[in-house]
Amino acid sequence: MTIRYPNGKKYVPVRTTNPQKISNHSFSNRGKTLEEDLNDSNEYYLTHNIAVIHQKPVPIQVVNVNYPSRSAAVITEAYFRTPSTTDYNGVWNGHYLDFEAKETKSKTSFPLQNIHEHQMIHMKNVTKQKGIAFVIVKFSTLNRHFVVPYDVIEAKWERMKAGGRKSIALLEFESESIEIELGFMPSIDYLGAISDIVNHEGNIER
Amino acid sequence: MTIRYPNGKKYVPVRTTNPQKISNHSFSNRGKTLEEDLNDSNEYYLTHNIAVIHQKPVPIQVVNVNYPSRSAAVITEAYFRTPSTTDYNGVWNGHYLDFEAKETKSKTSFPLQNIHEHQMIHMKNVTKQKGIAFVIVKFSTLNRHFVVPYDVIEAKWERMKAGGRKSIALLEFESESIEIELGFMPSIDYLGAISDIVNHEGNIER
Repeated sequence: MTIRYPNGKKYVPVRTTNPQKISNHSFSNRGKTLEEDLNDSNEYYLTHNIAVIHQKPVPIQVVNVNYPSRSAAVITEAYFRTPSTTDYNGVWNGHYLDFEAKETKSKTSFPLQNIHEHQMIHMKNVTKQKGIAFVIVKFSTLNRHFVVPYDVIEAKWERMKAGGRKSIALLEFESESIEIELGFMPSIDYLGAISDIVNHEGNIER
Repeated sequence: MTIRYPNGKKYVPVRTTNPQKISNHSFSNRGKTLEEDLNDSNEYYLTHNIAVIHQKPVPIQVVNVNYPSRSAAVITEAYFRTPSTTDYNGVWNGHYLDFEAKETKSKTSFPLQNIHEHQMIHMKNVTKQKGIAFVIVKFSTLNRHFVVPYDVIEAKWERMKAGGRKSIALLEFESESIEIELGFMPSIDYLGAISDIVNHEGNIER
């Protein structure tokens, strides 16, 4: 997840899974991550009064804090925690949006293990409350982005639980989700895809 | 803001303004804070399929992380940051809710300085998108809780900007906001007050 410095500079936090790789990645100048693109898109939506969608801060368990001075508390021991919800939520023209963003290097399928069960439960609860839950999946090698409505993810999840395949095939994305056409401003205009979802769901249609 | 340990135990993070007081407070066994009460209420709403509302994690700027092992990344230097939004948001029966929770020890008024300008801007943006923005104010000495719709807060804020009083009088709360009747489960049932707001705002009425 991207953490913003007050000066607007971004810091890509390291992850516990692969320190070496990630910490290099943090300071590399290669193409933007899906996360960076989405935060840029959300900034665009916000500044143009299109939607108010924010990435949630990384949940961190603070254990020790020092006070060298009243003006600057320094956290000296803390740990990354597993988020209990998805990474992004907000409001767009009266609709509550809630989504997770995932990247895969695979050219053929998206492994469902990238989505945690507690996130599935959260998206199900959101859907029950007439919120719009979805997942944005980026096939980074192909540079293709898909908006996958929760009900589609749920169906594939159930298939896996029933002993079926543990991933969603690219072909299934092409037929059952909405591909995002990449643009310039914003680069990932995912709200266009959401319009399609909204117009197919009477319970949240206005 | 309350940080939850995986085991559900709560940790009230220290703040930079008054370390001594807060760090005592963190480990005291006195009555619940507004924050604890609201998190309990949100848990109740979630488990009873009434609403999905979460407190956002405390935004923390991570500077240094150590890897004693792959399984546990330890943050060794980090700093609390100013949130760019309100503390709570979520969805309730198709409505996007977004609010800030504040306590005051005063028995007569609520100082507007407790609300940051960026939070006012955020709530204004939320309102533009037909979200429901409000502030929950607890007069802790009186143990009285009020739901203040954004437009009311905005009016008082503008009054202050125009050189008027820098606080909202308790009398104004009583006449212009909705008092929450305290109960048992949940102790602070603020959604009842929100129903009143929704029913008075055609643009977000269903």
